[in-house]
Amino acid sequence: MAYQLHYWPGIPGRGEFVRLALEAAGADYVDVCRGDAQQGLGLPAMLHVLQDASVPRPPFACPFLVDGRTVIGQTAAILLYLAPRLGLVPQREADRLWAHQVQLTIADLVQEVHELHHPIASSLYYEDQKAEALRRAADFRRERLPKFVSWLEAVLQRNPGNDAREVPRMVGARLSYVDLSVFQLVDGLRYALPKASRRVLKKAPLLTALHAGVPRQRRLAAYLASGRRLPFNEEGIFRHYPELDA
Amino acid sequence: MAYQLHYWPGIPGRGEFVRLALEAAGADYVDVCRGDAQQGLGLPAMLHVLQDASVPRPPFACPFLVDGRTVIGQTAAILLYLAPRLGLVPQREADRLWAHQVQLTIADLVQEVHELHHPIASSLYYEDQKAEALRRAADFRRERLPKFVSWLEAVLQRNPGNDAREVPRMVGARLSYVDLSVFQLVDGLRYALPKASRRVLKKAPLLTALHAGVPRQRRLAAYLASGRRLPFNEEGIFRHYPELDA
Repeated sequence: MAYQLHYWPGIPGRGEFVRLALEAAGADYVDVCRGDAQQGLGLPAMLHVLQDASVPRPPFACPFLVDGRTVIGQTAAILLYLAPRLGLVPQREADRLWAHQVQLTIADLVQEVHELHHPIASSLYYEDQKAEALRRAADFRRERLPKFVSWLEAVLQRNPGNDAREVPRMVGARLSYVDLSVFQLVDGLRYALPKASRRVLKKAPLLTALHAGVPRQRRLAAYLASGRRLPFNEEGIFRHYPELDA
Repeated sequence: MAYQLHYWPGIPGRGEFVRLALEAAGADYVDVCRGDAQQGLGLPAMLHVLQDASVPRPPFACPFLVDGRTVIGQTAAILLYLAPRLGLVPQREADRLWAHQVQLTIADLVQEVHELHHPIASSLYYEDQKAEALRRAADFRRERLPKFVSWLEAVLQRNPGNDAREVPRMVGARLSYVDLSVFQLVDGLRYALPKASRRVLKKAPLLTALHAGVPRQRRLAAYLASGRRLPFNEEGIFRHYPELDA
């Protein structure tokens, strides 16, 4: 049975980290909210799982994955579940745990990127918290972004064999879901904060090489060129507000 | 060999979620940063793992756990690793994944509690972002706290058998690490935001019963009465600033 991915239909957001894994592995999946409500898909199908009291183990939020009777929320937990089934993580328990740990740290950074434009409340418009966003973004560019990027670069530096690889890997020697997530993360940062990203990435050659190399994987290249790939936009997590960049 | 827990010595913070699991299981562990630097413990031992380039897989931040050659960062990942070894999670993969998913959602709430007093930057004092904190806290009390609490209550309601249990369980029929984390979360919320917490907990009888019942477990009761249990304080994540409560 096909995997069902449930996520907001108009933004890449957190759903894209799962979508990239499904696409890179050539997995059979349904992008539920982008389907037709007449066929039991669309937003109502997602809202049912989130809101109906008959669901025994309701996710707190999307994205979530439905695989038969299993419902899994939390982006990193979805990838922890999917990656062994898709061949996108090494076999050893220690490697899988390390991959998950890196993924959770990526999730923390993604959350901070969201807080950039919503430092006060997700329930308010950006325009209603712009003064606070300007302050938060200045700190993010100065303190947080360099800290996360230098950690990601250190992970790449310390992964044995990366000096000899054309495309470095985050965990192990082969493409893993963590590489896909790092690709998406760097892509989003370059969209949202082009100036600040260019500055920090100058000091991160392995991360830059990973971002350039990952999308050359055959299936991923086809996906990225397709209509299934959603562009970044100002409804999502990675938003380009020029006043927040410098 | 004893587990090594690495975390800031003066606050319960995120380290407490791991400590509660170790204590409830009666595990052999060393609380590294609270030990003596003369004996190779204390803060320098933690900073070595975080900062030394010889560490092959460095955590991004504390808490982290060292178990022989395995180093695990990210609170929820530490508990994912530890719980089966400590007998604090059901056996079935689906149950473990659900427990992890709930734990990751608790982690999201803990992060929002931190952002309450640091909405602009962790690198600034609370006093330097108090105006923003007042605004953020108002939204948190009105929107976010009730949403998280009603989800936690729904998880308890939908866990079969909880009506008949004196102390309800988050996952399965026996005490799990998720119960311990929820206990700590409710404890922290009651400390930080006593008025807002009282209001939302009135509508969450199972959550209230869990919080009251968990600390009666024998080992946990001994731990909570010991000097090993750190009190909440205004250096930690759960801080009581009366102006943020209402």
